[in-house]
Amino acid sequence: MKNHLLLKAAAGEKVERPPVWLMRQAGRVLPGYRKLRGSVDDFTQLVKTPELACEATIEPVKLLGVDAAIIFSDILVVPESMGLPYKMIESKGPWFKKTIRGNKEIDALNNGVYHDWEYVIKAIEMVKRELNDSVPLIGFAGSPFTIFAYMTEGVGSKTFSQAKRLLFAEPDTAHRLLQKITDTTIVYLKSQIKAGADIIQIFDSWGGILGYDTYKEFSLNYISQICEALNGMAPVIVFPKGAFFASHELKKLNCNVIGLDWTTAPEEARNALGNKSLQGNLDPCALYAGKRVITDAVNKMCRQFGSRGYIANLGHGLYPDTPTDNVRYFVEAVKNYRD
Amino acid sequence: MKNHLLLKAAAGEKVERPPVWLMRQAGRVLPGYRKLRGSVDDFTQLVKTPELACEATIEPVKLLGVDAAIIFSDILVVPESMGLPYKMIESKGPWFKKTIRGNKEIDALNNGVYHDWEYVIKAIEMVKRELNDSVPLIGFAGSPFTIFAYMTEGVGSKTFSQAKRLLFAEPDTAHRLLQKITDTTIVYLKSQIKAGADIIQIFDSWGGILGYDTYKEFSLNYISQICEALNGMAPVIVFPKGAFFASHELKKLNCNVIGLDWTTAPEEARNALGNKSLQGNLDPCALYAGKRVITDAVNKMCRQFGSRGYIANLGHGLYPDTPTDNVRYFVEAVKNYRD
Repeated sequence: MKNHLLLKAAAGEKVERPPVWLMRQAGRVLPGYRKLRGSVDDFTQLVKTPELACEATIEPVKLLGVDAAIIFSDILVVPESMGLPYKMIESKGPWFKKTIRGNKEIDALNNGVYHDWEYVIKAIEMVKRELNDSVPLIGFAGSPFTIFAYMTEGVGSKTFSQAKRLLFAEPDTAHRLLQKITDTTIVYLKSQIKAGADIIQIFDSWGGILGYDTYKEFSLNYISQICEALNGMAPVIVFPKGAFFASHELKKLNCNVIGLDWTTAPEEARNALGNKSLQGNLDPCALYAGKRVITDAVNKMCRQFGSRGYIANLGHGLYPDTPTDNVRYFVEAVKNYRD
Repeated sequence: MKNHLLLKAAAGEKVERPPVWLMRQAGRVLPGYRKLRGSVDDFTQLVKTPELACEATIEPVKLLGVDAAIIFSDILVVPESMGLPYKMIESKGPWFKKTIRGNKEIDALNNGVYHDWEYVIKAIEMVKRELNDSVPLIGFAGSPFTIFAYMTEGVGSKTFSQAKRLLFAEPDTAHRLLQKITDTTIVYLKSQIKAGADIIQIFDSWGGILGYDTYKEFSLNYISQICEALNGMAPVIVFPKGAFFASHELKKLNCNVIGLDWTTAPEEARNALGNKSLQGNLDPCALYAGKRVITDAVNKMCRQFGSRGYIANLGHGLYPDTPTDNVRYFVEAVKNYRD
């Protein structure tokens, strides 16, 4: 690997500057992506066509000069592999025709197998050839609870109250579904690693809607199973959005990096998660401001985290209306940062 | 006042059991409210007709036996009083025809005056007569940042990225608007207290989307101004949803009670906010389960908070599809709780 920064930082090794990438770096902020997206009817066509997914994955590496690529895909590949296909409704988000209401629907689910996500694997193989060991490739999956939330709610939601209803009213049923999702996710991530993914990120996008006690039971336990299963195969980044309230438990995960959203102060995170490398956490809205504000914010962030065991990123995915130049300023500011 | 529990608990005095009320107790979970709502075309008619608002306010006191009434109204009375009228779109939420883009629109705003919210005052006076000192009446307003978020975004949002854009790109403009909102909110809350509100709750519903540094600057500073202005007039409950990350700063507010959402563990809150009374914080989704689960959860919650300086509530407003009986079980469980 020509650029080792991300993998070294994940391992807590000393680096000359923090590595930088952005969640949702392959997306609407980039002109090539917008063109790609315009060339197909449906978002899922990009995900399911390896050539297109590869092109979307590579663009930010070339255009922004980030220190890692992340495979262009969707966390909902997993529920689809289990028998719940989804559509991505423009400016609304995912929509599932079938949802899980109880044991009957759980019984009818498959365990996803290689064939169901072969298009992701092909895309990873193509990307790895194109990258030619220039930067590492990040593979990813949603956390089991995040996938559970979509499979039971059927659409995005502020509260995911239908998903959570099951946790309280039928906890055994919920655990059964979570275990099925976890089993498939482990197989899925192993096949990504085998195809060439150098590091894995688990997006716990919705764990933060759980409580201090339910988070451990319904989200963290299953993330932990994944970390254990991948142990030694590839480093793992866990991004528990909005769930820093569980920092005492997050600390115990067998993973290398914890991703932070922008609500967590760097110093507090270092105190709470001392043994982990950290990733994050600029508010994506800061990229609506100009170059000076962005540069100052990046410098402050890098200084507060310290350059060892630190990966610069946003605290959430890029918002699609962020000016492309401002994304560049973010990346440049990190690359120019020195302790 | 025949039932002093809420006011005593807010003041940190010893009580025989925790007082209990529920955020959004006057709402779709109750049959009388559903009938009232069906009798008008628009939600705002309920808010603006004192007789109807009074009826909605009283129903949960009679039907559920809660220890406090909260005036049936909406936090968006304040922006409307400043010249930004809103509509409540069924199952979507608020919608503003005009929004604030910059200084031009801020210049055009009024400072809301008594006349603009006279219907709320009339409703409070009617409720006070009907309650006849049986239980205290809670008045309320949104936090300035929460109101700012709606005034600039124009609709509800998961990210409020347009609202936050202004904070980063034009902080001086944002502060100007926040100050105007704060000034009006103070006058508004004083007139509620004068009309008979016994205690005030400030709903910081959206402060939690800010970061650890921006929260203090753009939300807490203005909440603090309100607390200072009301000092000695009535006790104040601040409900900083999703913003417990700022507990070090929340502790310094000149208010009596901090409301907690369900992501904060009681013990952690007691440690972080030692001098405050606490309110909350059961996950509203727990009320989807049966009587046993609800009773167990309430007992655990009351035990963990301890009965001194504690007000039992949910960690968020009741979800509209909660079974009415389950709301009753919640209230009964608190009333039956003894240390």
